[in-house]
Amino acid sequence: MKSKSKGRLSRKSGLPPGTLIHVGERKTDKSRITVINYDEKDYGEFEAEDLNQLLPEKDSPKVSWINVDGIHDVGVVEKIGGYFDIHPLVLEDVLNTQQRPKKEELGERVFVVLRLLHINGDLSSEQISFFVGENFVVSFQEHEGDVFNGVRDRIRTGRGIRKRKADYLLYALIDSIVDNYFLILERFGERIEALEDEILENPSNQTMQRIQGLRKDIISLRRSIWPLREVISGLERSESPLIKKSTGIYFRDVYDHTIQVIDTIESYRDIVSGMLDTYLSSLSNRMNEVMKTLTIIATIFIPLTFIAGVYGMNFKHMPELDYRYGYPLIWFIMAGVAAALTAYFKKKRWL
Amino acid sequence: MKSKSKGRLSRKSGLPPGTLIHVGERKTDKSRITVINYDEKDYGEFEAEDLNQLLPEKDSPKVSWINVDGIHDVGVVEKIGGYFDIHPLVLEDVLNTQQRPKKEELGERVFVVLRLLHINGDLSSEQISFFVGENFVVSFQEHEGDVFNGVRDRIRTGRGIRKRKADYLLYALIDSIVDNYFLILERFGERIEALEDEILENPSNQTMQRIQGLRKDIISLRRSIWPLREVISGLERSESPLIKKSTGIYFRDVYDHTIQVIDTIESYRDIVSGMLDTYLSSLSNRMNEVMKTLTIIATIFIPLTFIAGVYGMNFKHMPELDYRYGYPLIWFIMAGVAAALTAYFKKKRWL
Amino acid sequence: MKSKSKGRLSRKSGLPPGTLIHVGERKTDKSRITVINYDEKDYGEFEAEDLNQLLPEKDSPKVSWINVDGIHDVGVVEKIGGYFDIHPLVLEDVLNTQQRPKKEELGERVFVVLRLLHINGDLSSEQISFFVGENFVVSFQEHEGDVFNGVRDRIRTGRGIRKRKADYLLYALIDSIVDNYFLILERFGERIEALEDEILENPSNQTMQRIQGLRKDIISLRRSIWPLREVISGLERSESPLIKKSTGIYFRDVYDHTIQVIDTIESYRDIVSGMLDTYLSSLSNRMNEVMKTLTIIATIFIPLTFIAGVYGMNFKHMPELDYRYGYPLIWFIMAGVAAALTAYFKKKRWL
Amino acid sequence: MKSKSKGRLSRKSGLPPGTLIHVGERKTDKSRITVINYDEKDYGEFEAEDLNQLLPEKDSPKVSWINVDGIHDVGVVEKIGGYFDIHPLVLEDVLNTQQRPKKEELGERVFVVLRLLHINGDLSSEQISFFVGENFVVSFQEHEGDVFNGVRDRIRTGRGIRKRKADYLLYALIDSIVDNYFLILERFGERIEALEDEILENPSNQTMQRIQGLRKDIISLRRSIWPLREVISGLERSESPLIKKSTGIYFRDVYDHTIQVIDTIESYRDIVSGMLDTYLSSLSNRMNEVMKTLTIIATIFIPLTFIAGVYGMNFKHMPELDYRYGYPLIWFIMAGVAAALTAYFKKKRWL
Amino acid sequence: MKSKSKGRLSRKSGLPPGTLIHVGERKTDKSRITVINYDEKDYGEFEAEDLNQLLPEKDSPKVSWINVDGIHDVGVVEKIGGYFDIHPLVLEDVLNTQQRPKKEELGERVFVVLRLLHINGDLSSEQISFFVGENFVVSFQEHEGDVFNGVRDRIRTGRGIRKRKADYLLYALIDSIVDNYFLILERFGERIEALEDEILENPSNQTMQRIQGLRKDIISLRRSIWPLREVISGLERSESPLIKKSTGIYFRDVYDHTIQVIDTIESYRDIVSGMLDTYLSSLSNRMNEVMKTLTIIATIFIPLTFIAGVYGMNFKHMPELDYRYGYPLIWFIMAGVAAALTAYFKKKRWL
Repeated sequence: MKSKSKGRLSRKSGLPPGTLIHVGERKTDKSRITVINYDEKDYGEFEAEDLNQLLPEKDSPKVSWINVDGIHDVGVVEKIGGYFDIHPLVLEDVLNTQQRPKKEELGERVFVVLRLLHINGDLSSEQISFFVGENFVVSFQEHEGDVFNGVRDRIRTGRGIRKRKADYLLYALIDSIVDNYFLILERFGERIEALEDEILENPSNQTMQRIQGLRKDIISLRRSIWPLREVISGLERSESPLIKKSTGIYFRDVYDHTIQVIDTIESYRDIVSGMLDTYLSSLSNRMNEVMKTLTIIATIFIPLTFIAGVYGMNFKHMPELDYRYGYPLIWFIMAGVAAALTAYFKKKRWL
Repeated sequence: MKSKSKGRLSRKSGLPPGTLIHVGERKTDKSRITVINYDEKDYGEFEAEDLNQLLPEKDSPKVSWINVDGIHDVGVVEKIGGYFDIHPLVLEDVLNTQQRPKKEELGERVFVVLRLLHINGDLSSEQISFFVGENFVVSFQEHEGDVFNGVRDRIRTGRGIRKRKADYLLYALIDSIVDNYFLILERFGERIEALEDEILENPSNQTMQRIQGLRKDIISLRRSIWPLREVISGLERSESPLIKKSTGIYFRDVYDHTIQVIDTIESYRDIVSGMLDTYLSSLSNRMNEVMKTLTIIATIFIPLTFIAGVYGMNFKHMPELDYRYGYPLIWFIMAGVAAALTAYFKKKRWL
Repeated sequence: MKSKSKGRLSRKSGLPPGTLIHVGERKTDKSRITVINYDEKDYGEFEAEDLNQLLPEKDSPKVSWINVDGIHDVGVVEKIGGYFDIHPLVLEDVLNTQQRPKKEELGERVFVVLRLLHINGDLSSEQISFFVGENFVVSFQEHEGDVFNGVRDRIRTGRGIRKRKADYLLYALIDSIVDNYFLILERFGERIEALEDEILENPSNQTMQRIQGLRKDIISLRRSIWPLREVISGLERSESPLIKKSTGIYFRDVYDHTIQVIDTIESYRDIVSGMLDTYLSSLSNRMNEVMKTLTIIATIFIPLTFIAGVYGMNFKHMPELDYRYGYPLIWFIMAGVAAALTAYFKKKRWL
Repeated sequence: MKSKSKGRLSRKSGLPPGTLIHVGERKTDKSRITVINYDEKDYGEFEAEDLNQLLPEKDSPKVSWINVDGIHDVGVVEKIGGYFDIHPLVLEDVLNTQQRPKKEELGERVFVVLRLLHINGDLSSEQISFFVGENFVVSFQEHEGDVFNGVRDRIRTGRGIRKRKADYLLYALIDSIVDNYFLILERFGERIEALEDEILENPSNQTMQRIQGLRKDIISLRRSIWPLREVISGLERSESPLIKKSTGIYFRDVYDHTIQVIDTIESYRDIVSGMLDTYLSSLSNRMNEVMKTLTIIATIFIPLTFIAGVYGMNFKHMPELDYRYGYPLIWFIMAGVAAALTAYFKKKRWL
Repeated sequence: MKSKSKGRLSRKSGLPPGTLIHVGERKTDKSRITVINYDEKDYGEFEAEDLNQLLPEKDSPKVSWINVDGIHDVGVVEKIGGYFDIHPLVLEDVLNTQQRPKKEELGERVFVVLRLLHINGDLSSEQISFFVGENFVVSFQEHEGDVFNGVRDRIRTGRGIRKRKADYLLYALIDSIVDNYFLILERFGERIEALEDEILENPSNQTMQRIQGLRKDIISLRRSIWPLREVISGLERSESPLIKKSTGIYFRDVYDHTIQVIDTIESYRDIVSGMLDTYLSSLSNRMNEVMKTLTIIATIFIPLTFIAGVYGMNFKHMPELDYRYGYPLIWFIMAGVAAALTAYFKKKRWL
C-alpha cells in the first residue's frame, strides 16, 4: 500500500497531466511485442523487433492484435501510442499500473483497463489495458503471461473467432481474464477450507493473523473485481460503433460470469466473518476447558488439604489423634469428600 | 465450492463460447424425456425413446411440454436444442449447472433458469432450465424429480390449465418450484428450533459449528433465491408476445410468494445472528458459573487452611496449644469464618 | 414459523391457483357478518343471518360496510365473493392468512391486506382484508374484534364520516389499525423498560433469552408493518377513480403515522442491540468482580499459609522456634504481610 | 416513550380526524401571544391579550409574525386557526406534539413542523410549528423560549429582514432553530469527551449505562433532525408562490448547515460505537491484570508451600531434618525457586 | 469538535446571514496576496501590497490567479470580494472554515470549497476556497502552503497550462490537492502497518486507544473527502459556460483519482475494524496463556501439597511414618503424580 501511494505521488508532484512515466514494479526484463493478424481465410503471427513493423497493422483490413508484454519502457509505449493515435492521458493510465478497472470511449476508440490476479504465495495483481479500434486491439501487460494462450490457439486453429472483428477479440481477451478469476476463487476456496480445518482442529496464535490476512486479500480481490461489473455492462450497452450489437450477447455472458464471481466473493466475505466468530468462540471454549480442569482439581484437593492441615495441628488435646482407627478413618472421610465433589461436578456436566 | 470453480475452469480454458460440455455432477443414470401435450379437449402423454418423436411437437397447435431429466448426455441436449431452435449459448447455460437464476428473452423465445433446492441431510441444489416458445415448454432437470407431479396431475385431470397456453404452463412450473421453497424453509425452521434448544439446554463444542453450518446454508439459500425476484418480476412485466397480459396476475402471485420466501430467509438470518450472541453469552455464563464455584470453595477453605497451618507450627511457646478447649475452640472459630464467608456470598447472590 | 410454512405448503402442492382453502388457525367459532349502511341522513345496522341479505347492499346508493368475523368457513367467503365480484385469486389471498400487507387495484375495485397485531402474552397477528367498491367495503377479520368499534360509533353518531364515500370508510378502518400499532408499541416500550431494569439490577441466565425473544418479536413486528408504508403511499397516490383526491390528505395523515410507527420500531431495534451489549458487558463485569474477590482472598492467604507452613517444618535446628516471642512475632509479621497486600489492592482500586 | 404512545392512543381511539386535543406535557402556564408586524419603514410589537387583536394582521400589507407560546389551551389555538384559515388536520398536527419534522403545502399556505432540542440534564425536545401565508407567519411553541430573540432583535434594529416578505421570516426562524442544533452538538461533544476520559481513566459499572444512555440520546437526536433534510430541501425547491426564488439561496444555506449537523451526528454515532469497543477491551484488560496478579502470587507461593509441607511431614527417617544447615538451606532453595519463577514471568512480560 | 461548534454558534446567534466574521483559528500572521497572470506568450508574478493592485486583474484578457494566504483579516477578504463581485453569502462561506466540500454555480461564476489535509503528528485540515470567473481564479488558503508550488512552476516554465483558460487552472489547483491526499493516505498506510506490528508483537493498554484514534482519524478523513466526489463530478458535468467541454476529460481524471482515494479509505476502514478483532483476540489469547500457566502450576502442586499435608498429620497410628523407606517412597509417589499430570497437559496440548 505504501509503495503504491508513493508511486502516484512522486509521479504527480508538479508534473502536468499526460506526462508519461512508468509507475509500478518492473515486472519483466524487456518489452516484448507480438502481433497476430487474421481474417477469415488467413492468419499471421510475428514478434516485432522493430516498432516500425507495427505501422501497417493500423489500417490493414485484417484484425490485428498487438500484445505488449512489459510496459516499463516508456519510449516503446509512447511510440506505439503514436502509431495508433492513443491519447496521452490514456497512455498515462496504461503506464500508471494502479488503476481501478475502467472503460472509456474516446470518439471511435475504446479503452479498457482490467486487473489480472495472480497467486504465488501472496495475492498480487497486474494491470492489463486494451486499446481497441475498428481493426485492431492493442493490449498492454506488465508480465509475459499465459492467460491469453487459449485465445491465441483459437485464432491459430481458425475457429469462429476469425470470422469476427476486433470487438469480438476484445470480448475473448476479457473472457480469458474473467475465467482466470474462477481459478483465483478456487485457490481462495482451498485456503478457506484449510483455515476452517485449522480453526476447528488446531487453533493457534497465528490463526487470527491468517484469518485477517485472508480477509484483507478478499477485500483487495473485491476492490479489483467489483468495478468490472460496471465496465462490462458498459461495454454490453455501449453505443460506440465499435461494439457491434451481435457481440452484445457475448458481453452479456461475461457479465453473468462477473456477477457470479462477485457473488462468490461476497459469500467468501460472509464465510470469513463467520470464521472469526468460530475462532473467538473456540478461544472461549478452550478457556472454559482450562478453567474447568483447574476448578475440579483445586476444589477437590483444597478441602482435603484443609482436613490434613487440621490433623497436623499441635494441640495437646485432640482426641481423634489418639483413636486407634483415626488415620484410616480420616482417609475414608477424605475419599468421601472427594467422591461427593466428583459427583457434584458430574451432575453439573463439567466432567 | 472447490469442485464448482474447477468445473467452470476446466470447461472454459481455451474453448470458444457456445461449446457444449456438461458441467456438474452426473445426477441420474440416463436422460429420460417425457412429453405431455394438450389442448382444451385432448391430452396425450408419452416417453420419447427416440428423439425424432419430439419433432412434431414444435409446430403442433397443442401445447407441448417436453421434460428432460438428466442433462449429462450432451448429445441429447444438443439434438433437442436443434429441434427447438435453442441458441448454442443458451444450451451452454443449460449444461453448465452453476448458473444464477436468470431470464433471457431471445426474440420470440424466453429462457429461464431457476434453482430447485433439496435437503437430504445437506442442502443441495439443482438447476432447472425452461425454454419457452408459443406452443411449447422445454424443461431440463438434473434429476428425475417429483416437483412437477402436481402440474402433471392438473393437466391429466383437465383443470383450467388445459385452457391456456405455454406461458401459463411456465407459470405453473415456476410456481411448483417456489412452493417447494416453502418446504425447504420449513426444514430450516425445524433446524433453527432444534439448534435453539441445543444452545439453551446443552451447548457443546460442536454447537458453534452447527450454527456456522446453518449460517452458510442460509447464505447459499439466499444466493439461490434472491435473483429470482428480478426474474419473476421481469416475467410479469415482460413485453414479449409470449407472456400474455392475462398471465401477468399469476406471475404477480408467484412474485408475492417469492417476496415472502425472501422475507423469511432474511428473518432467518437475523435469528441465526441472534443465536450466535445467545451461544456466546451462554459460554460466558457457564464460565461465570465455573468461576463462582471455584471462588466459593477456594475462598472458604483457604482461610481455614491458613488457621490449621498456624496451629501446626512448631513454636515452643504457643499458649493456645495447651488450653484444654483450644481444639474445639479452633473448630468453632473455623466454622464461624466459613459461615461469615457463606453469608457474604449469599449477599452477593453468588450462591 | 413451522406451522406457517406447513400451512402454505399443504395448500399449494398440486392445487391450481384460485382454489379456496382456508390456511391458518380457526380463531373464532362461527362466521359473523354484520352490515352497516349509511348515507348523510340515514343509518342502518343489522347482523346477516342469511347471506342473501347482503345482495341488495352491492348496488345500493348508500355506503355499505360488510364486516365478516371469522373466515374459516370457506363456503361463506366464497358466496360473499360471488355477490361482490371478488376475483378468485383475491379470495384465495383473503383465506390464506399469511400474506404480507399489500394493495392491489383490480379494475374499479381495490383490495388491501393488512395485519392487525395482538399482544396476549405473546405477539400474534391477524390478517385483515378489505375489498372496496364504489359504495361498499367488505372487510374480513379472523377474530371478532373491537378494533373497529370507534368507527362504528362515529357512523352511529352521524359524524362527518356519513357525508363521505367508501374510500373514506376504508381510510377510517385503516386508521383504526394503525392507531392500534401505537398501543402495541407502548407495550413493547414497557417490555423494553422492564428488561433494561432487569439487565442492570438482576441479570440472570434467562435474560439473554428474553432479549433474544424481544429481538425476534421486533423483527416480526417490522415484517408486519414495513410493507404498509408502500401500501398506504400507494393508496394516497392511487389513480383509481375509487380513491378521491379529497381523501388523499387523510391517507397522507395515516402515512405520516405509519412512518412514525416504523421510526419507533427502528429505534427499538437500536435499543435492543444496545441492550445486548449492556448485558454482555454486565456479564464481564460480574466475572471481573468474582475474579477480584478470589484474587484478594487467595493472594492474601497464600503467603500467610506459606509462612505458617515454614514454621510447621520439623527441622531440628530452627532457632526461631525456640525464641520466647517467636510466636507473637510471627503473627505480627503475618499481619504486616496482609496489610501490605491490602494496601496494594487498595492502590489498584480492586477494593 | 411510554407516555408518548399513550398520548397518541388515547387521543385517537374512536375520534374522527381533525378533532382538536392537546397531546403532550403542559409546558407553560398560560398561552402568550406576541405579535410583531413590520415593513421596510415601520415596525410594531404588542402582546395580544384579546384574540380579536389578531384579526387585522391577516390581511395587513405588513408582514406579521404571530408567535404563540404554549399550546395546551385548545380554544386559543382553534380560534387562531379560524382567523388564519388553518385546516383542522393541520391544527391537529400543531397540537399533537409528537410529530416528525415535516412540510406540507396546502394551496397557498405552507405548514412546517420542526423540533427544537433542549438539554437540561436530559435531552428533551419541543415541537415548533409554522403556518405561513403571503404576509404572515404564525409560529406555535410549547414553551416560552429565547431561541427567536435574535430574529426579534434583527427586526427591531431594522436590518435587511424588514425589506423582505414572510418567506424570508420563515427562513430566519428555521435558521435560528438549526443554529441551536450546533449548541446541542457542542454539549454532546463535551459529553463524549468526558465519557472518553472516564473510560480510559476510571471505568466503572455505570460507564456502560452512560455509554448506552449517550447512544440512545444520539439515536433520538438523529430521529429529530434527519427528516429536516428533506423538509428544508423541499422548501428550497418549493414551487409554492409563497417561497420566492430569491429566498432559495438562503434555504440552500440552511440546508448546508443541516447536512453539517447530520454529518456530525453520524460521526458521533461512529465514535460512540468505538467507545463501546474501548470500554469492553478495557474490561478485558483489567481482568487480565487481575488474573496476572493472582497467577504470579499463586504460582510463586504454591511450590514454596509444597516444600514447606514436605518438611512438615512426620516420617521417622527424614535425614534432611537432622542436617545442621538443613533449615537455612531450605530457605535458600525456596528463595531460588521464587527467583526462578519471577525471572520466568519477567521473560513473559507479565511483570 | 468543541471549538468548531462554538465558533459557528457565536457567529450566528442573532446575526443576519451574510455578515462577515472569520470563524476558525488564526493560522498565519498576516494575509499575503500573490498574483500570477499569464497568457500563452507572457507571464507575470507579483505580491500585492496594496489591494488596488488587484483591480486590473478582473477584466484583463490574461488569466489571473489571485492567491490569498490567511483569511483572518476580514477587511481584506471583503475588499477582494468587492473587486471580483463575490456574493456576501459566498464570502461568508470562505471565512467560515468549517465547510464541507461543495460546489456552487452562481450565474457565470463557480465557487468551490475543498479541504486540504495536513499531518503533523495529528491530522488537521484547512479549508481552501476557489472563486472562478472567465479569466481569473481567486483562491483562499488559511495557511501559506506549498501545495500549489507545482502549479506555479508549470506556469513559470510555460508548459501547456499557459495555453488554457481559468477552468484549466482550477483543474490544476484541485488536482494538486487531490494528489496531496495520496500523501496523506501513505502516512495512514504507515501508521496502520506500525499499529499492526504493535498488535501482534507488543499489545499494551494504549493499543486500543491508538486503534480508536486511528479509526476516528479515518472517519474524519472520510468526512473531508467523501463529498468531493460529488463536487468534482459536478464540475465534470457542469453546464456553466466557464467549464469548457475540453476540460471535462481532465476533471474526469481527477474524479478517477478521487474514487481511488475513497476506495483506499474504505479499505482502510475495513482493515482497522479487522485490527480491532485481532487486538481483542490477542487479549483473549494472552489471558488463555496466563490461565494455562496458573492451571499447570496449581494443578501439579495442589495434589502434592495435599500428600505432604497427609504425612504432616499427628495421628498416633500412622504406620507409613515408621517405614524405613517411607520418606523416599513418598517422594517417588509425588514425582509420579507430577509426571502423570504433566503428561495429561501435554496430551491436552496445554504445554
